[in-house]
Amino acid sequence: MKLTILGCHSATPRENSHTSAQILEIRNNTFLIDCGEGTQVQIRKNKISFNKIKSIFISHLHGDHFYGLIGLVSTLGLMNRDTDLTVYGPKGIKEIILLQLKLSNVWLKYNLVFVELTSKSSELIYEDSKLEIHTIPLNHRVYTNGFFFKEKEKERSLNISEIKKYNEIETCDYNNLKKGKDFTCSDGYIVDNKILTKDPASPKSYAYCSDTTYLESIVPIIKNCDLLYHESTFLEDNYHLAIKTKHSTAIQAATIAKKAEVKKLLLGHFSARYKNESLFKVEAKTVFENTETCYKGMVIEL
Amino acid sequence: MKLTILGCHSATPRENSHTSAQILEIRNNTFLIDCGEGTQVQIRKNKISFNKIKSIFISHLHGDHFYGLIGLVSTLGLMNRDTDLTVYGPKGIKEIILLQLKLSNVWLKYNLVFVELTSKSSELIYEDSKLEIHTIPLNHRVYTNGFFFKEKEKERSLNISEIKKYNEIETCDYNNLKKGKDFTCSDGYIVDNKILTKDPASPKSYAYCSDTTYLESIVPIIKNCDLLYHESTFLEDNYHLAIKTKHSTAIQAATIAKKAEVKKLLLGHFSARYKNESLFKVEAKTVFENTETCYKGMVIEL
Repeated sequence: MKLTILGCHSATPRENSHTSAQILEIRNNTFLIDCGEGTQVQIRKNKISFNKIKSIFISHLHGDHFYGLIGLVSTLGLMNRDTDLTVYGPKGIKEIILLQLKLSNVWLKYNLVFVELTSKSSELIYEDSKLEIHTIPLNHRVYTNGFFFKEKEKERSLNISEIKKYNEIETCDYNNLKKGKDFTCSDGYIVDNKILTKDPASPKSYAYCSDTTYLESIVPIIKNCDLLYHESTFLEDNYHLAIKTKHSTAIQAATIAKKAEVKKLLLGHFSARYKNESLFKVEAKTVFENTETCYKGMVIEL
Repeated sequence: MKLTILGCHSATPRENSHTSAQILEIRNNTFLIDCGEGTQVQIRKNKISFNKIKSIFISHLHGDHFYGLIGLVSTLGLMNRDTDLTVYGPKGIKEIILLQLKLSNVWLKYNLVFVELTSKSSELIYEDSKLEIHTIPLNHRVYTNGFFFKEKEKERSLNISEIKKYNEIETCDYNNLKKGKDFTCSDGYIVDNKILTKDPASPKSYAYCSDTTYLESIVPIIKNCDLLYHESTFLEDNYHLAIKTKHSTAIQAATIAKKAEVKKLLLGHFSARYKNESLFKVEAKTVFENTETCYKGMVIEL
């Protein structure tokens, strides 16, 4: 699992600070999470293949999270994309994008699929053999969801040197071994699967929570996740502004991380009023030690 | 009159090439002409005051000319702007912007006025004591207008050393002198205005023509203008692509400049396929000598 931060600032894009956008590469999928104005330029700058982006997840309809979507959708059209693109986002996102395409008289060659979200409870919105994606209902000034990306248990990996000791085991048996089945020899002797295979790498999970007030109902959804991105627009000096604008402080984000017993916390969505962003980490670490602050171009591999 | 080029490339924004946007400062007005994605960042980078922007002129509803508008409108709101902002553009621009503001639950404190254009003939869309703005109907794949900014005749400037020779002339007479009136002394002697005043600076004019095929009907509208910006998406090597996509070549732009007897031609809206943009000037100069190619951050003062 690899996360690339394309932008992690709130409100408006500036020359050296970009609004929310992240690329998550997980189990051979490339997902874009939020898409502030200028995201397509950051995708190019970070040498991420436009055509690999399979789905886009929009948390809410504030400009710093979606104003770059129409430009990206259009550019994918200019690039002659022909594979489907799915956009998950709040109800209304489809009308916004289709209205602009219609008035521009642009006809995409690819299938643009919208999955509009309206539920106030956590939903499973995507599932395949390797991955699940759930919404994380958040509390902001407009309808907002975070997204929880959760790898499924991986297959056991083969212990080839042990397997070779049994002449009877053939490559056509490998699939059953990977699934954890024991091997029965022709004489009835049963070889324990644990001898023939090794434990797989543990499945990883990533939770994206932006924008939101301090919200404890997140905790059971993201419990024990490997990486939590939680917005921290403000430091404690603006606690009351966080309440008023339905944002979080660094300490509030850290408190959620602690209660959910996540392995690592990433802070982002910083207000432009703060020139020294290391202070976010300083404040959060008083509550939750394994904290990092995002920066443009940051890459985290799990 | 001062023109600042914020972006002059077609199709999609890239790290070092931005889509169409220009700032025109004319007779104490600051106008934005077209507004591709990322324009607000370029405005900031060029140290242009956001709040001085009085009106925005959108030529047509292709993304490289308007995808930055919603972001700019929102940022002006965040900046607590309280003076009116007028947006001139094709029918549909109002619906696009208001839908996004509504779904974002954003309420602007300033008055956002839309003047939606539908006419296929040139129209006077703005006039005050110092300035006129006319549309220039263009021929592109969607409804498109260029814009013609034309200063009115300026008042005559006072020749103070000559005026001082006549004790009878008081400051309250100056307005009449500026308007070209002669001065009649108490003994009936008439002082010719040309003695008391000097010729004013000649009024300037600027024509913005993007995007369009080669279109001779532009010529009478922009005849003799001081500066013509004309799109030249392609060189002659892609003449047939220019025809097909309803764009112009550098030579076509230069031919319009020559027929309209403009003083200077500015080329822009370059396709990203060309790495050496000086070739646009080379080709255009075979037809019209006083040609320049645009670049990001270019400033032209007339």
